[in-house]
Order: sequence, then structure tokens, then C-alpha cells
Amino acid sequence: MKKTKTWIITCIYLQLFFVCFGSPCTNPLTDAVNDIEKLVGNLPNDYIMRLKRVPAKDHLAKHCWLYVMVHELSNRLELLVYKFSTTSQNYRILGDLSLIFREIRNCVHLNEQMEFVEEYLDNVSDGEFVPRDFFNSVTSTFDVFKDINNTNYNTTCVVPTSDPELGEYC
Amino acid sequence: MKKTKTWIITCIYLQLFFVCFGSPCTNPLTDAVNDIEKLVGNLPNDYIMRLKRVPAKDHLAKHCWLYVMVHELSNRLELLVYKFSTTSQNYRILGDLSLIFREIRNCVHLNEQMEFVEEYLDNVSDGEFVPRDFFNSVTSTFDVFKDINNTNYNTTCVVPTSDPELGEYC
Repeated sequence: MKKTKTWIITCIYLQLFFVCFGSPCTNPLTDAVNDIEKLVGNLPNDYIMRLKRVPAKDHLAKHCWLYVMVHELSNRLELLVYKFSTTSQNYRILGDLSLIFREIRNCVHLNEQMEFVEEYLDNVSDGEFVPRDFFNSVTSTFDVFKDINNTNYNTTCVVPTSDPELGEYC
Repeated sequence: MKKTKTWIITCIYLQLFFVCFGSPCTNPLTDAVNDIEKLVGNLPNDYIMRLKRVPAKDHLAKHCWLYVMVHELSNRLELLVYKFSTTSQNYRILGDLSLIFREIRNCVHLNEQMEFVEEYLDNVSDGEFVPRDFFNSVTSTFDVFKDINNTNYNTTCVVPTSDPELGEYC
């Protein structure tokens, strides 16, 4: 009888927790991450891919960097996938990676951060990368997501002041 | 007894034929030609590939056009294959296509035509093609090879006179 009561109380607590804070992320990082190497090997190594890469995480809190890169990379992958035949191996892998990014977007409530993300990216220039470097950014983004998943999203992200001469963030 | 004699005579004739004219080509066009569509679909459709394409067959006899394109395409494919990981699907397909070109080179005795081919290509500029157009040239080359295989190689190939202003063949 005492055990049943404890169970009921636990359930009520859990329900209250989810109502207040939203359900925690299930793991969006499917086995598709293991296909990144196959995808890179299956692209010409001199193919030029454009990306607004934010290399230094120093001037941004990790979760703010994550918002920016998840938005940027998911958009680029959505464009990239349509450059392949729908029956190709690369299309399938890119589709699976795009799905991971969509899940992460939901998971970190990216739609609530779009004002910051878009303002930040407005001031970053497109870079040109070969496939290995482009997909290193994908892997780094997944690593940061794993690192801070469900924690450390508590500070507000603010666009740093930019250097008027360079037009880039300092 | 008569049948055996006829067989022996036939064999002697065949042996003499091969000694005098070389063995006819076995078909070098393996099933890999069916993978061209898969390869094209597996390459980004905006990837730029360089090629000295000789579009008009009018000013060259078919077999002379074939010599030029087989040499040019086989060299380009040999360079292209190394842009992919050795374990990738594209590497495998390109390797198989390169093998077909190597067989065709032997088949048409291309090494005996290298003076003409190199002199001809010296006056053709590199063009830039997306994968579908590049591989359309591969398919056209295979088609011409099938069309004239073992026949019509009898005229000598001569580099046409070039227009000194355009620096290209007229």
C-alpha cells in the first residue's frame, strides 16, 4: 500500500515537471552520424561548399554558438540534399542528417532564438569549405549538443558588439 | 573423317587471321555503363568538371573523334577517381569506367595514334561541365565505339587546319 502511494506521488511529480519544463530531449543523434565519413568520401574532395562558420566559441556562450550553427548548418544541408538524385546514397545520408538537425532544432527550442540567430548571422560572411571541413563543423555541432544537452541553456544570448571597420564580431 | 578435316582447316584459318590482324576486341563495355546514372545522381549537380570536349564529329572521321575523346575522357576519369575515398561507391564506379576506357584504348590501338591525338587536343580549350553533361560525353563515346567497333578504322587521322584568329579548328 505504501509502495503504491509512493509511485502515485512520483508520477504526479514527474507530470508536474514535464508540464513546467517541457519533456527532456530524446536522443536525436541517430546512427546517421556514423555515415558522415561515408558521405565525405563519396563527395569530390575539391567540391566547394559555402557556410557561415563561427569558429571561435570564446565570444559566445556554448549554447548560443549551438543555436547559430544548428540554424546555419540545417539550412545548408536542406539546400545540399537537392543537388543529388533522390535515389542516391548521398541523398539518403543527407536526408538522415537533416532529420537530426530538425530534431535538435525542436529540442533546443530554436524557434524562440531566431531573432538572436538571424541578427548574429547577418554579420558573418560566407566561407568556402571542402567537404571534410564542412562536415567537421557538423560533427563539432553534434559534439557541443551532446556536451550541453538539457543543461546550460539558462543565459540569454546577446549579439556581441561588432568592429565597425572589420564588420565582424570581436 | 571429313568433318574433322574441315575443323582442322577452320582452326588453321582462324589462327592465321589472328596472327595477321590481331585478335578482335572482346566487348569492353561491362555492366559498369549501367552505373553511370547512379554516379551522376551521386555527384552534386553543380560540381564543375573540366573537359576538352569535341562536340562536332563533322570535321573529323568518327574513328578519329573516338581516339581524341577516349584519350581525353580516360585521362579525366583517372584524375577524378582520386577525389573520392577508396571505399566509396563513386570510387568503385569510376574505377570500373576507367577500366572500360583502358580496354577501349587497347582495343583501338590508341598508342599508335598519340601523335595525332596530342596535336589535336593542343588546340582545344578546356570547357566546364556539370556532371550530367560530362557523363553524356562518356556515354556518347561508348556509343560511337559500339557503332564502329572493328570497322572503319582504315583512314589516317589528320589534324584539320586551324583558324589562326580563333586558334580553334574550323
